[in-house]
Order: sequence, then C-alpha cells, then structure tokens
Amino acid sequence: MTPDYIRQILESVRQGEQDVDSAFEQLKDLPFTDMGFAKIDHHRQLRTGYPEVIFCAGKTIEQSEEIIRLMCDRGSNVLATRVQEALWQRVKDLYPEAEYNRAARTIAIRRNVVPVTSTYISVVTAGTADIPVAEETAVTAELFGNRVERIYDVGVAGIHRLYSRIELIRGGRVIVAVAGMEGALPGVIGGLVDKPVIAVPTSVGYGANFNGLSALLTMLNSCAAGISVVNIDNGFGAGYLASLINKG
Amino acid sequence: MTPDYIRQILESVRQGEQDVDSAFEQLKDLPFTDMGFAKIDHHRQLRTGYPEVIFCAGKTIEQSEEIIRLMCDRGSNVLATRVQEALWQRVKDLYPEAEYNRAARTIAIRRNVVPVTSTYISVVTAGTADIPVAEETAVTAELFGNRVERIYDVGVAGIHRLYSRIELIRGGRVIVAVAGMEGALPGVIGGLVDKPVIAVPTSVGYGANFNGLSALLTMLNSCAAGISVVNIDNGFGAGYLASLINKG
Amino acid sequence: MTPDYIRQILESVRQGEQDVDSAFEQLKDLPFTDMGFAKIDHHRQLRTGYPEVIFCAGKTIEQSEEIIRLMCDRGSNVLATRVQEALWQRVKDLYPEAEYNRAARTIAIRRNVVPVTSTYISVVTAGTADIPVAEETAVTAELFGNRVERIYDVGVAGIHRLYSRIELIRGGRVIVAVAGMEGALPGVIGGLVDKPVIAVPTSVGYGANFNGLSALLTMLNSCAAGISVVNIDNGFGAGYLASLINKG
Amino acid sequence: MTPDYIRQILESVRQGEQDVDSAFEQLKDLPFTDMGFAKIDHHRQLRTGYPEVIFCAGKTIEQSEEIIRLMCDRGSNVLATRVQEALWQRVKDLYPEAEYNRAARTIAIRRNVVPVTSTYISVVTAGTADIPVAEETAVTAELFGNRVERIYDVGVAGIHRLYSRIELIRGGRVIVAVAGMEGALPGVIGGLVDKPVIAVPTSVGYGANFNGLSALLTMLNSCAAGISVVNIDNGFGAGYLASLINKG
Amino acid sequence: MTPDYIRQILESVRQGEQDVDSAFEQLKDLPFTDMGFAKIDHHRQLRTGYPEVIFCAGKTIEQSEEIIRLMCDRGSNVLATRVQEALWQRVKDLYPEAEYNRAARTIAIRRNVVPVTSTYISVVTAGTADIPVAEETAVTAELFGNRVERIYDVGVAGIHRLYSRIELIRGGRVIVAVAGMEGALPGVIGGLVDKPVIAVPTSVGYGANFNGLSALLTMLNSCAAGISVVNIDNGFGAGYLASLINKG
Amino acid sequence: MTPDYIRQILESVRQGEQDVDSAFEQLKDLPFTDMGFAKIDHHRQLRTGYPEVIFCAGKTIEQSEEIIRLMCDRGSNVLATRVQEALWQRVKDLYPEAEYNRAARTIAIRRNVVPVTSTYISVVTAGTADIPVAEETAVTAELFGNRVERIYDVGVAGIHRLYSRIELIRGGRVIVAVAGMEGALPGVIGGLVDKPVIAVPTSVGYGANFNGLSALLTMLNSCAAGISVVNIDNGFGAGYLASLINKG
Amino acid sequence: MTPDYIRQILESVRQGEQDVDSAFEQLKDLPFTDMGFAKIDHHRQLRTGYPEVIFCAGKTIEQSEEIIRLMCDRGSNVLATRVQEALWQRVKDLYPEAEYNRAARTIAIRRNVVPVTSTYISVVTAGTADIPVAEETAVTAELFGNRVERIYDVGVAGIHRLYSRIELIRGGRVIVAVAGMEGALPGVIGGLVDKPVIAVPTSVGYGANFNGLSALLTMLNSCAAGISVVNIDNGFGAGYLASLINKG
Amino acid sequence: MTPDYIRQILESVRQGEQDVDSAFEQLKDLPFTDMGFAKIDHHRQLRTGYPEVIFCAGKTIEQSEEIIRLMCDRGSNVLATRVQEALWQRVKDLYPEAEYNRAARTIAIRRNVVPVTSTYISVVTAGTADIPVAEETAVTAELFGNRVERIYDVGVAGIHRLYSRIELIRGGRVIVAVAGMEGALPGVIGGLVDKPVIAVPTSVGYGANFNGLSALLTMLNSCAAGISVVNIDNGFGAGYLASLINKG
Repeated sequence: MTPDYIRQILESVRQGEQDVDSAFEQLKDLPFTDMGFAKIDHHRQLRTGYPEVIFCAGKTIEQSEEIIRLMCDRGSNVLATRVQEALWQRVKDLYPEAEYNRAARTIAIRRNVVPVTSTYISVVTAGTADIPVAEETAVTAELFGNRVERIYDVGVAGIHRLYSRIELIRGGRVIVAVAGMEGALPGVIGGLVDKPVIAVPTSVGYGANFNGLSALLTMLNSCAAGISVVNIDNGFGAGYLASLINKG
Repeated sequence: MTPDYIRQILESVRQGEQDVDSAFEQLKDLPFTDMGFAKIDHHRQLRTGYPEVIFCAGKTIEQSEEIIRLMCDRGSNVLATRVQEALWQRVKDLYPEAEYNRAARTIAIRRNVVPVTSTYISVVTAGTADIPVAEETAVTAELFGNRVERIYDVGVAGIHRLYSRIELIRGGRVIVAVAGMEGALPGVIGGLVDKPVIAVPTSVGYGANFNGLSALLTMLNSCAAGISVVNIDNGFGAGYLASLINKG
Repeated sequence: MTPDYIRQILESVRQGEQDVDSAFEQLKDLPFTDMGFAKIDHHRQLRTGYPEVIFCAGKTIEQSEEIIRLMCDRGSNVLATRVQEALWQRVKDLYPEAEYNRAARTIAIRRNVVPVTSTYISVVTAGTADIPVAEETAVTAELFGNRVERIYDVGVAGIHRLYSRIELIRGGRVIVAVAGMEGALPGVIGGLVDKPVIAVPTSVGYGANFNGLSALLTMLNSCAAGISVVNIDNGFGAGYLASLINKG
Repeated sequence: MTPDYIRQILESVRQGEQDVDSAFEQLKDLPFTDMGFAKIDHHRQLRTGYPEVIFCAGKTIEQSEEIIRLMCDRGSNVLATRVQEALWQRVKDLYPEAEYNRAARTIAIRRNVVPVTSTYISVVTAGTADIPVAEETAVTAELFGNRVERIYDVGVAGIHRLYSRIELIRGGRVIVAVAGMEGALPGVIGGLVDKPVIAVPTSVGYGANFNGLSALLTMLNSCAAGISVVNIDNGFGAGYLASLINKG
Repeated sequence: MTPDYIRQILESVRQGEQDVDSAFEQLKDLPFTDMGFAKIDHHRQLRTGYPEVIFCAGKTIEQSEEIIRLMCDRGSNVLATRVQEALWQRVKDLYPEAEYNRAARTIAIRRNVVPVTSTYISVVTAGTADIPVAEETAVTAELFGNRVERIYDVGVAGIHRLYSRIELIRGGRVIVAVAGMEGALPGVIGGLVDKPVIAVPTSVGYGANFNGLSALLTMLNSCAAGISVVNIDNGFGAGYLASLINKG
Repeated sequence: MTPDYIRQILESVRQGEQDVDSAFEQLKDLPFTDMGFAKIDHHRQLRTGYPEVIFCAGKTIEQSEEIIRLMCDRGSNVLATRVQEALWQRVKDLYPEAEYNRAARTIAIRRNVVPVTSTYISVVTAGTADIPVAEETAVTAELFGNRVERIYDVGVAGIHRLYSRIELIRGGRVIVAVAGMEGALPGVIGGLVDKPVIAVPTSVGYGANFNGLSALLTMLNSCAAGISVVNIDNGFGAGYLASLINKG
Repeated sequence: MTPDYIRQILESVRQGEQDVDSAFEQLKDLPFTDMGFAKIDHHRQLRTGYPEVIFCAGKTIEQSEEIIRLMCDRGSNVLATRVQEALWQRVKDLYPEAEYNRAARTIAIRRNVVPVTSTYISVVTAGTADIPVAEETAVTAELFGNRVERIYDVGVAGIHRLYSRIELIRGGRVIVAVAGMEGALPGVIGGLVDKPVIAVPTSVGYGANFNGLSALLTMLNSCAAGISVVNIDNGFGAGYLASLINKG
Repeated sequence: MTPDYIRQILESVRQGEQDVDSAFEQLKDLPFTDMGFAKIDHHRQLRTGYPEVIFCAGKTIEQSEEIIRLMCDRGSNVLATRVQEALWQRVKDLYPEAEYNRAARTIAIRRNVVPVTSTYISVVTAGTADIPVAEETAVTAELFGNRVERIYDVGVAGIHRLYSRIELIRGGRVIVAVAGMEGALPGVIGGLVDKPVIAVPTSVGYGANFNGLSALLTMLNSCAAGISVVNIDNGFGAGYLASLINKG
C-alpha cells in the first residue's frame, strides 16, 4: 500500500465515491499495510509464488497437517521444515504433488511456478554428516526460485577435494558453506572467492565440539573477509538469506 | 590459468618451441596460479581500486606505519583499522590526503578513484555507543566504492525512532544492523524488510552481556529470516561483506 | 502473632489466668509465628483462598497424588504444576471439580471462591511454542484470583501483530512477556508501555539458544527499563509475582 | 489517536472542510502517534516530572555535559548515572542545585517537584560492598517520587541482622534486594515476605563468582516465589521498576 | 610398614635369620607399603571394618556383581553406590544380610561390626528432591561407623523450618548440607553454627540451574566461613569426608 | 538463651517479680538470642580470643583503618586480609605489635593469647606462585590458635618432591592443599592420606586455566575421597575451616 | 608424483611418445598429486598396508556396511570405529577374518600384513571406565603396525598402582594417557618420563565434569612438559598420532 | 636404582660389610631413587646439556635473577621464559653470552654445547601476531639442540601462501602450528602431511575468540588426524614436546 493509495482513498471520499465507513475499514489497517507487514505475512508469498514456511519442530503432527492444509487452500507454495516421517505419510496422500526430502526433513508443495534464476547459489559441505543441513538450505532456495549447485564432502582435512570443485563453488553469486566439528571450511573458501559466504555451523561432532559451539566460534573468528554466520543447524535461514542475495 | 593455457604449454613443448626446463618452471606453480590465489592477495586490489587493509591491533606503531608506506608506494588505496591516535599523527604528515575517522579508529588513503554505486548500504545502530563499530563499517564500505546511508540510535527500546527511518533503511540493497546490550535490533529490522541483514553484535553493555556474548546469541537466534552475524565489534567484516552483496 | 498477642499472654500469666506451662507452649514457637512464617506455609493459603502449590517434577505420581489428597482434605485450593497425564487420570476420578490444563501441565482444584480482581495481568507470548509456559503463568494467576488477558503469538519478527494488540497489553497492571529463541519481545514491550514487565525466557529454540540461555541473556540486557526476569520456563514464578503486583 | 479521530478526519474530508493534502499529512504518521510512542520518549517525562536519565558509561565527559545541559534547558528533572568525579566538577558549577551521590555515582538535578508516595520501597543489601548499586536504586526511586527505606548489610551469613530489620523490610510495597558473592539474600527475604522482590546481583566477590554470574544464577534459581532479577549491577533498572510497582 | 619394620628385616638378614631372596621379596614392594598405599587400597578396610566401595555407574550388572562377590569373599564390609534395581535383585539372593536403600541407590553388606561414634554427623537437605543424594551420604557415613542425624526439607525459602531444627543440626560434629536450585542452605547454616559444613550441590532444578552449576557456584561463593564443597550430587564423597572429620 | 530461661521469665512474671513491660523487652528479642546469633558476630570472638576478620578488598584504606581501630578498641585480636601496602604503612605506626605478611597480604594484631593446638594443620602448595594464598591460610589458622606446618612447592609434575615430605603432610589432623594450573595436587594427596583434605584452587596459570576454573573443576572431580573445595584463591576460608576441624 | 614425474611427462611429449591430450589428462590433476593428496586419501593406505578408517557414528548401518565392502574390495586393511553391535552382526558373516573389539566398538579387517614395530606405544588409563577409549587407541595403533602395551586402571587416586607399572610405561617411545573425571594422570606421568605424552580426556564422570571438560582443562593446564591433548573420547586420534610418532 | 642394587645392599648387610644403619639410610630413599625422580629435576639437565627452564611470569625480577644466577653457577644452560625487559637489563650485564629474544620474551644462556639434530622441527604461524608464541617454541627447541625451520604468516585465509611453503613444512619430523582467531591452520596442515602436528592456539583475536578459546576448540575438533593441542599461548610446551619427538 503506497502513499498514492492513501491519497486515492481520501480523494474517493472527498468526491463522494466512497463513504466514511468503508474508507475507515481500509484505513484502520493502515499501520500494517503502510509498513508492508502484510506483504511479509501473507501477500508477499501469494504475489511472488514464494512458499509459506512451517517450522514443524515443537508442533504435533496434527497441528502441522492443519497448517499445511490451510496454506494449500490459499493456493500458496508450501515448505515444511523439520518434519517427521509420520507427517509425510499423511501429507503424501493429501497432496500427490508433494515432495519429501528425507535427508533435509522437508516437505515441499508447489502450487505456483516460480521462475528460476540464471545465477546460482553454491551449497557446500565439509562432510557427509553435514548434508541434511545443506539439503534444508538447498530445498529452501530452490523453492524460492533459485538455481542451486550442490558441492558436498569437500572439507579442509582433504583440501584437494575442495580444489577440484573450486571453480564451480566460485561461480555462485553467493556461497553457503556448511560444516561441523572444527568448522574451518567457510574460512578457507572465503580466502579463495570474492563472493559472500554464509557459514552454517552444524552440531556434527563429539566431545569438545559442544553441540556445534566449536564450529560456530571458528566461523565467527574467521580471518577471511566476506563471511557471516547463521545459527547452528539453521539450513533454512541460510537458504532464505542466500535467496535474498541471489535475487537481490 | 585456464586449461587452455596448460594445453598451450604442452603444445609448445611438443612443437619444440619451448624446452622442458622452462615448461617445468611454468607448470610447477600451477596449483596457485590456476586457482587465482594471487588475485586475492595483491592483484585484485590494484585492479579494482579496492583498498588494501591493515588490521593495526597487535602491531606496533612503527610496524603499521611501515606497512602503510609499502602499500602506498604500490599505488593502492589503503585502509587501516583499529588505529591509535599516535599512528595518525605520523601518517597525516606523510600523506596529506589521508583521512582519519576518530570514532571508527580508521585511516583511509585514496590513491585511485573508485566509482560509487547507485544502490546503497544502510548502516543502522541501536545506540550511540554502537556508532564507532558502525563507522568502521561505513568507512570500509565507502572506500570500497559503496554509497552508504547512516541511520543511528534507533534501538528497539524506543521503537518509533526506528519506524520514522524505516523507509530509508529499507531502501538499502543490504542492511548492516549494529547493536550491543540485548542486540534485538537486527531481528526487528529483519521482520520489516525483504533485504539481507548483516548483524553486528557489539561489546557495549555491562553485567550479563559478557562482552557482547548476549547480543551475539540474540542475533544468532533471531526468529526473523534473512539475518546473519559477524564477530563481536567486527565493523570491518560487515562493511566488506555488505560491499560484496551491494556490488554483487 | 502481633506484639499485642505476646503482651496478652504475659498479662494472663501475671493475672494467674494461665499457668507457666501453657504460656511456655505458646511462646516457644514465638520465633516463627511472630515472624509470620506459618502464614507463608499454611495459614495464609487457608485464609486467603490462595492455592497450595505442588511442583510435581521429580516426584512420583503416587507422591504427588498423596500430597494433593492431603491438601484437599485441609480444604485448600490446590495447584499442581508440571503434572504428567497419568497423574491427571488419577486425580480426575478423585476430584470431579478438578481442572486440567494440558498445555500448561497444571491441575487446579478450587475449594474456595477467590474474588477476581478488576485490574488484569497481560500474559503475552512471542510464539506458539511459548504458550505452555504462558498458560502455567495464566493458570497460576487466575487461581490466585487475578483477571488474566492472554495475547499470544505476537513476537517481534512480525511486529505488526504486536501493535494490533498493544492497547490490550498496555491495559494490564503488570505484563508477563514469554519468549524463547532470541527473547526480544519483553524489551520491545518495555519500550511501549509504562507498566512493570516480567520477562520469562523459554527453552524454545535450537542451536546457539543453549536451552534458553540466549533468551535469558537478552532479557537481562534489555535497554528498556521496567523489566525483570525469572528463571527459564518458570511460568509459575511469573504468575505468582504478577499476582503480588496486581493485588499489591 | 483513537479510531474516532480517524473517522473525524475522514468526515472532514468528505464534507470538504479539509483538503486531501492536509489529511494525508495527519494520516501518514498514524502508526506512531496512534501508539503514543512520543509520550514514552519526551512527553511523559515533562508531564510527570519524572527525570530524564543519562547513562554516562561510554560517553565522554563533554558528551555527558552537553546532554545534561540540553535536558535542563527543557526544564526536566535530570538523573545521570555512572558519572565520573570529573563530570561532577563541571556540573556542580553549572547547576548549584545539583546533587552528587558519590557512592551511587549519580548526579540528580531537580527542576520540578514530584510528590512523594506514602508507601515505600525497601532497598536492602547483603554487604557493605553492595551499597553503591543499592544507592543507584535509591537515588533513582527517590527522584521518581518514591519514599525509600534503606536497610544495608543484612546478608544471610549473619541472618539475625536480617531479622532485626525484617518488619521494616516487609513494610515496603516492593523490595529491592541487592547482593553479590553467593547472592542468597533475595531468596531468604522472598520466603519471609508477601511482597514483590526485585533481586539485583552485583559483581562483588572474587574467584568463582565470575563477575556476578554466581549471584545471578542463585537469584534466578531461588526456591522462594515472588522474585525476579535484573542485570548484574543494574541499580537503576531496579529503581525504575520498583517505582512502577510502588506507584502502579 | 614402619621404618622399624625395615630395620627388623635388615637385622634378621644380618643375623642370618632370613636369606637375601626372602628379604628382597619383602622389600621390593617397599615403596608402596612404606607409603601406606596398601592400607588405602585393601588393608585399611579389613583392619578398620570400613566398607569397600564400588561405584556402579558405568559398570555392567555382571561386573558389579563380580566385584561385590570378590569383596565379600575377602570378608569386607561392602558399599555399592549408584546401583540399579536389577543389581539388587541379584545381590539380595546371594547375601540375605544385604541392605538396599532405594532412594540412595546403595547396597550395603555388613560382614564386620564397626563401633558407632557417640558424636554425630548432621545430614541436612533443602528439599525433598535432594533426599536421594543425602541418603547416599547417610548410608556411607553409617557404614563407616558414624551416628547420623537426618534433617530433611529445611530449605531457606521457608526458613522457620530450618530454625525449628537448628539445635539438632548444630549438635553434629560436622554438618553435610545438601541443596539444589539456588543452593543457599549451606551458607545460611554456616552463619548459624561453629562446625565444619560440607556443602553438596545437587542437580535438582531446571532452566538456569544448568544441572547443578547454579548451586555449586552459590556454595563456593558463600559469605559464611567454614564451608567447603564437593562435586554435584556427590553424596558418597560428602559422607566419606564427614566420617574422616567426625572420627578424626 | 535456653528454654529454662524463658520459663524463668514467665515464672517471675507470674510471681509479680517482674512487670509485663520488662518481660516483653526480654522476650521480643527471643528469636535472636535463643539462636545464639550474637555469639557468632561479636561475643564468640571476645570469649575465645579468636580474631575479628576484615576483608579489605573493595574498602578504601580509610575505611579499613577505621574498622581496625574499632576492633582493637574492643580488645579483639584482629586479622585483616587482602590488605594493600599503604594500609600497612598506617597500621604499623598505630599498633607496633601488628604483624604484616607481605606474601599473604595480611595484617595480624594479637591482643589476647590463644593457646596453640598440639595437633597441626598441613598447608601444602603445588608451586611457588601458590604461596600467597597458602600464607593467607596459614596466618589465619595460626591466629586462630592452630599449629601450622608449611610444605611448599611439591606439585605433581615432580612428584618425588611430594613423597619426600609426605610423612609431614600426613601427620596433620587436616590438610590444606593449594594449587593452580592443573590443580591435581589435592587429588594425589587424597590418595596418600586418611585425613580430610581442603583443596584451594588458585588463579595461577594462563590460557585455558580461565582464572582458576581449571583447577577448581579438577578438584571437584577428584577420584580420591576425603576432599572438598573452597572458592578460588580463598586462603582465608580454608584456614578458618581447617581450624574448625583441627580444634573440633 | 614427484617433480621428476612432471619432467618425464614433458620429455615424453617433446619426444612425441605421448600426445598432448593424454599428457593433459595426467597433468590436469597435478595440483593434487604433486601435493601428495592422493597418498593421504587412497594410495598411502594401499602402499603401506595402513587401514582405511570409517567413522561410523552418524552413518546408518547400511551406509557403513557399504563403505566397508568397497574398501575391502580394494584390498585395503579396514578399521571401522564407533560401530554398533548390529553392524558387527552383518560384517562377521561377510568377512570371517574380521575382528570385533566390543569395548573399543571397533571392527578391524586385515587384508595385508603390516610389519610390527620393535618399539612400543604405552596406552595407560586412570580407571576401568576409561578402557573403551583406550582400546580404540590400542586397536588403531596395532592395525597401523605398532606394538602396544596396555597398562590400565593406574589412576592417581591410588598412585602406587601407577608406580608398580612405571617402568613398562616409561619404556614406550610414546605414551597415550587416558583419563576422565579429574584427568590428572597424564600430568603425573609427564613428570615421571622423558617421552611424549598424548593425553586423552574422557567423558567419564558426573556433575561438574561437564562431559569431559574438567579432564580436558586439567590436561591442557598440566605443569609437566611434554604433554599434548586430543579431543574428549578421541581414542582413534590418539592412536593415529602415536603411530606417527612411534614410526616417525 | 635397579633391583640388583637392592640385592647388593642386602648381600653386603648379610656379609657384615655394611651395618644396619647405613643400609637403612640407603633404602629409606628407595622410592625416589629407584624411580629416577632426581634425574628429572636436576641430573637430566646437567647430563644432557638441556637447559633449565624458569617461568618468570608471577615472579619478581629479583626472584627471577636469583634463580638464573643459581642455575648458571651449576653450569647449566638456562632458558627463562615470559621475561620482562627489565630482567634482561640486569642479566645482560651479568652474562655477556646471554641472548634475548624480544618477540619471544626469552633469555637463553648457553654454557654447554648441545649437538644439533639433522632432522628439523617446522614452526608455522597463521599470522604475524602469532609470531611471539612461535618464537618461544623455536627458542626452546633450539636450546634443546633441535634444528628449527620457521615458516610464518601462512594462514588459511590466503591458502596459496601455505602451499608455496608446504614442502619445507612437510620436511620437518614434527610440525608446530601456531594460530589464533579461527585456529584452522593446524587442521589444514594435518590434511597435507604425514607428520605429527602440535597445535598451539593463541589468544590473538577479539570478540567471540574469548581469549583463545575459539582457536583451542577448533584445534581439538580438527577432522584431520595426527594433531594434538597444548594450552593457549604455550609456546614453550610445544617446543619441549617437539624436541622429545624430534630427538626420540
């Protein structure tokens, strides 16, 4: 809702085209629509074909299913994250077009076609155990209409594996680097490329990794520039941010 | 060094145009030049007019001065961060064109003109005490050729101050949000805009802020999407990353 | 037991109305009754109709049931917190008037009518996952005779939801703000109201939220004034304190 | 700005009493004035005689002095916290009516008379080293128009000292309990009174007190109900909150 | 083995009463027996009737049973701590005289009579949930031949309960004070008695108690003198130490 | 004040020997005198010749001097801990009999003769840097009338040094073991003796010792029984507790 | 691939023995083979008879089995760590020569004979609960061709046990010392030997051991020289490093 | 002292060649001399030409000077670490042959020639700020008779710098890798070499590096095998251990 829109309402009232009550109805939500809040919540998704996102952790299967139905009824694309197998068993019968990514623990339901970007997002992992988090990133970004290139298991302990893929990594407009344990991968990539690097620490590891704290601190202290960090295991957040940068 | 270049060398050897020893010399550095590492370190800066950056913390004034001289001799733009007043006293006599930002503790020396972007980076702070970190971000981004808009002291404790500037903030292609104490600003901004938000926790505060840990954790746990975090007080890192995104 | 009461005993001894042994019995408990300790433990609840409270975590179902029976026999209102479903199965047969709040994990048994305050306590949550803690607060406060207004799912990531309810929130004599993850809600509310805000961090979240530490630190470091904090997930404590303020 | 006010504007436009441009001006700020944000920042203080508060830590003496002048020029009562001796030397010459509390490190300048409450706030400390934090609380509350009773050095290691003052403590409408080291005082008081207790951990102590963390955790984990906690050494915050409760 | 014993061996060799080989056998273990190590491991228990102690956590039921058999065969009193119910099912058939303390999770088998001290150890808990740890202390101390007085559920949130038992507590030659959550009990007792106080933090609590860290820090920072602390939940260690002091 | 005393007062009232007002005066302080609190604060020291103790950290030199004067006027022995050199310069002129222990940072003033125990306290350190803390222990214990044996610099990195003194260490009725860095000394001693061991972690070390946390955790987790721990650098607390055990 | 090898390829091209395309194929992997990466990954194991290692934690049984098959097909010796019983049930049927170490949770399959060193590695544990970690070390080192001496349950709480085995421990070319709880063993050994000591903290313990943090900090702060530390419970890492030193 | 030696003493007593008292004197020290403890402290250094080492932190300049004199009088080589400039001013006059390494803060005094190894130790740093710690390592190792190769400023943010020196690094028999901030260097080196890597975290960095904790955790969690870690900034410890491995 632009300032022009406010003027239009006022003008229509002045000209007697609209009565006070109906104008009041339109204006009483002004604080939110003027600030674009509603775009964020509902309108944006419908207009852009962006998915609505449901974070299923901490919700019962019934609750998650109900929200998915509601959103599908509104014609939205839907992304559910941190889903359990049992939710998938229900959803796949309801929506045959639904796609389940077991590693990422996501369900995606595409109702609208989102054009795919020509530029791509590089999603990189240090080890195989980091792949579920990376898949959450990739699925999120793809559903938002981004081309994604997956480059997995190229951690710094065997750094030649990283080099053999560096051109592909570097070709992305933005790079998501996912790593647990020591978490050194984003810093090394940051020294090899001129692109924004989103670092995702994972809780993969044991002992003094303290459930991802070790990787998190490594990434925050990286000597290489151009790196920023999201929460431990937050693959969705990285995918959302990467999409904003890639499409920005 | 492209694969084509390797073929050329081999071809010239085959045709006797080049002997084995000289070809060996070219090929033995292959890993590095093929990967373009040197661009990262020196060539990139010279070519792009980007500044060379000196992190002065932990260096003596003599060491910092010597590095600045060396870089200026190479014709680079130079950015020195975390400088002490005493270093500025020396540098300002050597390079009259040098600019000192006392709040940011930076010295900038421009030798080459970098074209300024039409899009801009919004640099936002929660409080006045966060301004030095924000200025480090702003100075860095400007020297890299970015237009910067400063929106300071709009923390969430008086949230109407934030709203009165939200359109300016939202207009940036990327937003850097700097906050200490509770560190809630980036999360609130993240809920109001559709742009990447780089969150910079500062060590401003006391007691259970644990030198910035409180703000850092808040930012990592933000419910709003599109946010990532750099190290505590790392204004330079945020500026560098914002430039990559704004110019990307 | 007031000083007057001590004088009465002494006077009755002086006048021979009471012998030394019976006076001794009354006085030997003096330290406690004079300090009002017994009010806190037993008498207060009976007199005021306040519930007796049983914290069931760490107790067997048998133990909890036994304490509930004992208290009910004394005619008290009873509040059991952190109850398991299995305890409810037993209690509902014993006391048909018992009320079970599955989300809050509370059982309430009202034996005495407590008059309800005209002023109210606003109980606010950032997300839906914070509702169980908020319900523990609400149930506690209601059983203590407070009117409660529930305003749920108004977290700062979509801050317009908060604004649409701000007048209702602000109308409370005291506000309980419950939030996990980044925990920014109490600070934002604190900047919008002139009422005491009791902040309740929850363990909702993942990764670097460290089981509620993130929200706890955010709340302790809030820039807004008028905020204080209780333990992580301590809905009961917030409800008790809010009642003291609302009825104070 | 009530909904009625919006209707009035629309009505005046409809009736031609007001043109579109002027109505637009009134409506475009709707979100902020409707929410009363400005009251919070400036108007409230002027209207109520409440002091404006300057947190001087992290500001230069010049900056602090300038802000004090500005506020005094607006006729406000002024409270400056965490002031250095040198600031006081300047201010006392400018404003002869200024009061300096060396222990609390506060400067108070009263320009308006604030009526004093009949009820009082009990401010209690465990040790003598906690007094500066308690004085910050007391000075803040007094400047806000509250009667304050100071009960110092009654820590639990010599608990009879606490008992000899318990009636005075209990008489307050709200109690602020300040303690470092083990931080047990608020919990013991909480078991003896039926009033809200605001616990203030201090950084007093050494070794495993970790600059106040020990006292903070003790207070958050108190078994007694009716207690909430503010940041370490946050005497001002406790005073502000106590005033809200005492005058609420 | 005293120095006198070494001289005896040497003398018997000199006098030809003992040959070199047998003397060598006796002396080759000298470092250990001279230092009294064997007393600690085996001899001490046999001589004093002290139990041998088996820490069953981390051992299989088979391993624990085997060690118990071995020790019983040597005629020792036996104390097994942190036992599982299943171990008890086996042991009770083997040794009808075995005693199982379900709360303390201990099995005690008395083969030798240990005289009981006239002085006693006071074992005190703050809450009912602390009783299992306290029982481990009590069982340990009793098996070592100490008289024990149990004073449970006298935490500082209802401090009059503590006072009603203070004379009994104070009568002990040493006091073991067990508390979780805020852990304030030992400090309050330390201010009321002139006896050594062994503080045992427990992991009882939730949220910011961090599995006992809160109580541990409180106890370490106690303002009262005469207090020392053992590991979280270490009831056995407290009982062993209390026995050393009581019988010392 | 014993129960008999209460009966006496009542009897004298009954017999008209005492009026109600004077009896009231005696009885209204009952909680405190009955519990012997005053003994703890003042009377105990005077009666036993025990020193009064002043913790000077956080006090100005003027404040510390004033308290020392006050205590000396009351005829007490005085112990001041954590004193600065400048305080000593003042005190030595006032009280020629005062003794300054520069390492321990203590001032002791003996006004009354305290008989010395025949049994002794072993005070042991791992390194030379731990000596100041150990001296605080030793001075405290000596002023309380204990014989003390000092065994310094016998840390486990050169364990033969420990063995050469083990008989002297073992001869104490209680052992205070002071260690920084890894803090292993108390555990090794605990395995070699049958006496209570009070472990004192010190902040000596660097890096991952985290100001004494490393030594503290080591001591709390010691596998040897009979060990308890006081706060980091708390030499006074260890000395006080050791005295209670040695004289108990 | 040595520099000589590069020259050979160039020479063969020059002499027309090899065409450009085949030379290109060999050279395009140059960065990796020149740096010896392939040795690390694949070639080294085959050449040296070293096992390939599979870390099974976080892999499904199917995944682990598949990798084991693949490696066995390549003729490698194979070491699988952190295996579950169920994996062993599958593998033992496939490879009758496979060896399962239940304590260490390892499966070893020897396809090639690795000569055993004459020097040995001493693997020492403090307690019996540390044996699984130590066995992982021992199995790893043995499969790499090292002689290993196991010295278990010689912790410092009963230090004579350590002395009775010290000559055997000292005889190793390198010592691996495994300890949980207080973690003091490596430091004591470090003071008794002149050999490198690899310290392995284990998560054995409870309470303030914080899952191995206590032992980790103790080992890092050891006063004895010649000690370094690996991650908590990282028996494999210690075995690998010990092998490098023993065979170095 | 071998078992044979014990037999000799016994035999000489049996044959009357030695009386009981003198034999007793020889045997009573048995535990220590048999275990060779004295070698560790003094004899070893004299015999091997190894330096005696003085850790000067926490010692006064007078104390350090006195110890240096004492050691020099015994003819030892001497290494003093963490020395202040003022100590050097004194020592250089006393011992003209003394060598001061300002970066490493060490003083070395060579009295005996130690033969230098043919194999070498690679000492590597990530940045220039890590050099002081690395120099402490290098000076220590050199004084112990090791050849040292210094490879500085080759951190992973510009990884081609590391590659250009990798052959020199790899040539060492053992590698010491020193890094602050993110601490990723040792892990990357560990993936490129087949030699033991000693990782030294430094306190270099700011913000969430928490004085070296970040680098420490990274190194402990390294995915590459063959790495172990010493305390933060512990250059001496790394040098000592590297010498044990290089000369072992």
